[in-house]
Amino acid sequence: MAICYQAPVKPICVRPTTTFSSTPKPQSLRCNLSVPIRTLVSEPEPVLTSVKAFAPATVANLGPGFDFLGCAVDGLGDFVSLSVDPNVHPGQISIAHITGDASGKLSKNPNWNCAGIAAIEVMKMLGIRSVGLSLSLHKGLPLGSGLGSSAASAAAAAVAVNEIFGGRLRPEELVLAGLKSEERVSGYHADNVAPAIMGGFILIRNYEPLELMRLNFPAEKDLFFVLVSPDFEAPTKKMRAALPREIGMAHHVWNCSQAGALVASVLQGDLVGLGKALSSDKIVEPRRAPLIPGMEAVKKAAIEAGAFGCTISGAGPTAVAVVGSEEKGEWVGEKMVEAFWKEGNLKAVKAVKKLDRVGARLVS
Amino acid sequence: MAICYQAPVKPICVRPTTTFSSTPKPQSLRCNLSVPIRTLVSEPEPVLTSVKAFAPATVANLGPGFDFLGCAVDGLGDFVSLSVDPNVHPGQISIAHITGDASGKLSKNPNWNCAGIAAIEVMKMLGIRSVGLSLSLHKGLPLGSGLGSSAASAAAAAVAVNEIFGGRLRPEELVLAGLKSEERVSGYHADNVAPAIMGGFILIRNYEPLELMRLNFPAEKDLFFVLVSPDFEAPTKKMRAALPREIGMAHHVWNCSQAGALVASVLQGDLVGLGKALSSDKIVEPRRAPLIPGMEAVKKAAIEAGAFGCTISGAGPTAVAVVGSEEKGEWVGEKMVEAFWKEGNLKAVKAVKKLDRVGARLVS
Repeated sequence: MAICYQAPVKPICVRPTTTFSSTPKPQSLRCNLSVPIRTLVSEPEPVLTSVKAFAPATVANLGPGFDFLGCAVDGLGDFVSLSVDPNVHPGQISIAHITGDASGKLSKNPNWNCAGIAAIEVMKMLGIRSVGLSLSLHKGLPLGSGLGSSAASAAAAAVAVNEIFGGRLRPEELVLAGLKSEERVSGYHADNVAPAIMGGFILIRNYEPLELMRLNFPAEKDLFFVLVSPDFEAPTKKMRAALPREIGMAHHVWNCSQAGALVASVLQGDLVGLGKALSSDKIVEPRRAPLIPGMEAVKKAAIEAGAFGCTISGAGPTAVAVVGSEEKGEWVGEKMVEAFWKEGNLKAVKAVKKLDRVGARLVS
Repeated sequence: MAICYQAPVKPICVRPTTTFSSTPKPQSLRCNLSVPIRTLVSEPEPVLTSVKAFAPATVANLGPGFDFLGCAVDGLGDFVSLSVDPNVHPGQISIAHITGDASGKLSKNPNWNCAGIAAIEVMKMLGIRSVGLSLSLHKGLPLGSGLGSSAASAAAAAVAVNEIFGGRLRPEELVLAGLKSEERVSGYHADNVAPAIMGGFILIRNYEPLELMRLNFPAEKDLFFVLVSPDFEAPTKKMRAALPREIGMAHHVWNCSQAGALVASVLQGDLVGLGKALSSDKIVEPRRAPLIPGMEAVKKAAIEAGAFGCTISGAGPTAVAVVGSEEKGEWVGEKMVEAFWKEGNLKAVKAVKKLDRVGARLVS
């Protein structure tokens, strides 16, 4: 049966896939929101009875890339296990278990859980009405760390639901489902959830309609992130309140040019240029760094120890530095942990991880 | 004889060339300005008795690339003829002739002429004390058109002087000489003079020290500019006064993301993306376009006629659109000329030109 669905989030421009029949070009018809209307030929059936998906941590903001550029980091992230469950009401989802980091703080009500919200959105997009799903979430990422914890849960859930029904939706469409989740938790920003789903570096070019640009870091080059998370709470709301409302023209031009240089450095695999751009933000970091004890000293220590650049990851409190090798990363990380302790009186943990080029994927 | 010279403009970081002996790294010694001090081993002798140089027109600002991104346009520009002249006092330069567009408006005093100022700077950099030079300038570019007229004169002169003495200075050093000229005429901005000297797209990453990034548009792809200049004066000073002093965070993030998208599109040879980014400025163009009669209609006409994007070139009044072929460019140009006439009551002339990938060069 044909089902007309409206994307439940802000308008996007999506290309039709072979499983959908679509109008020749995005419609400008309005049904509450201006969205392209696509007709699902039939409700898909599950192709698997259970799946397990992983979605990586992400570093958003990236210095002058504030609010529009993010990248994925391999080896850290959240897991979602999903199974077809005849005990769950058809068309609905139930959260069975939440384990891992800070799991006690998360709701099992799918409408109030990042993974649940994203899963429901994907089910809506696919028009799932005949099958109930049971979801288990394993948190590998701490909450409020600046590593895209909520986005990782949403991304893993979105991919899991899509794959259990045969993978009909494209990554960009899954980003929309993830955005619905992010909107509830931390604001309508795709700079975590887009790279969590798609991997690599993603530039958010537009929201209305959603337009994403993948920036390919050259395959033959290595890029490592040193992630140092202090034992400190930096609520996104407070960190956002610290931002200036108005920006002088000189700083605007400076940050724009550094954003351009950052993009060029990513595409050219220029680690020196990338690090320099990462460190160059004159607008956001200067306001936020003083709110994280020791952050300025940590940045200095990272660069003195040989990092190409360093800034705050997301809204903090994690500090992120970029290096070209794991060994260098370990050394830089030690110095950053030391600086958090000496200058901020904060204990911190480090991780040295590669750029994740794949994004959310099935792991079993 | 060893001559110690100080770069006469704002501090730059320059790498030593083989003709100079230099300290291991740029000095932080200050002699009025913080500049690297380099020692010229010997005053170079002329290797040619006369040269003729050409420097191309340039499009600066480029929508969200305001004040840090510019590119060169082939087939339009200024010419400088230079010869060793025993009648000119050694170490000095004389302007013999100025011909071409609006030549009557330009001073023959080299200290008040863009070409003269740049030529003098290059002579200082090279430590020329024993040879006098005679310069003739042919203006191919109209003044105040938004096509980098002053930068083209400066670039051609800088290259001519450098080449007559064997080409010892690198392009980045010649940009510094050009900047000295630009500073006098239109402000300390390198987004015209850098591409005029170096060709292609140049991102100005920093001024202190000067750091330039070349953004290579793929060699196998074509990029054409449609340049439509109306019979209208848009003084740079007035156009700069129209700029907002403060920019809201949302517009800042938008323009930054578009700047990133513009850089990515250039590097990837993505004409659609490039045009879209060019058209996307929410900060500068909305303030300046209303000051140029018909500009908004001209942009609309260009895009309706099939241009990938359109904006104001430099500080105007020229409108620049990008297209993928000369034929398309002619058609788009006609529509833009029509729109200037219909909506702005202005006569306008069009030119369809390729991206210049070389920059200022000797032509005889």
